[in-house]
Amino acid sequence: MPPTTPPQEHQWSPTEQEIARHACDRAREREVAALLAYVRDTASAISSLETLWNLHDFLSARRHDLDGKYEDQYDALIFLFARLIKEGWLSLDELAGLEANKLAKISALMTLSL
Amino acid sequence: MPPTTPPQEHQWSPTEQEIARHACDRAREREVAALLAYVRDTASAISSLETLWNLHDFLSARRHDLDGKYEDQYDALIFLFARLIKEGWLSLDELAGLEANKLAKISALMTLSL
Repeated sequence: MPPTTPPQEHQWSPTEQEIARHACDRAREREVAALLAYVRDTASAISSLETLWNLHDFLSARRHDLDGKYEDQYDALIFLFARLIKEGWLSLDELAGLEANKLAKISALMTLSL
Repeated sequence: MPPTTPPQEHQWSPTEQEIARHACDRAREREVAALLAYVRDTASAISSLETLWNLHDFLSARRHDLDGKYEDQYDALIFLFARLIKEGWLSLDELAGLEANKLAKISALMTLSL
């Protein structure tokens, strides 16, 4: 039997891969910059061990989230992009060049609770 | 048989308990204040995710250490005081009033690696 061709919806052209990679990088940079600014502001006002451990808990959660969020798998990118746009780290315009069916899926997912 | 009297070295008089409690509180306040100042200074200069996660690792270790360090057990206080004086959070003078054998043990432990 010939090798199975994956469904078109899971295929990413080289151009699409480049667009997706750049979009991911931009969103990640924005999210990290916002996190660093938040930590600098929050830490400057810390005046008790309780508020310090609150910051530590917050960092533990953000680290766990960020470690898994920007995984380099194209199949998961549709969901990641929908999430990033919904969270405000990316705009749909920055994905211009992706196939219409991918953009339609991202738009549809943005209306759902992710 | 009469109840066994614990060895004298493990007994803390009410006065000694008060001295020990105050010494612990003072050392803890100094250590926490130094930690908070360090975090405020360090966080203000954070400019990358790597340095942020370094701070997070540091806080995880300090939290684990502080959670167990100031335990309220008199039998462990001899070791705690030796450690606190060695670390600079407390001075031997602030334990004036404890029995001579306790002070001698603390002094002896201070010369060991804890």
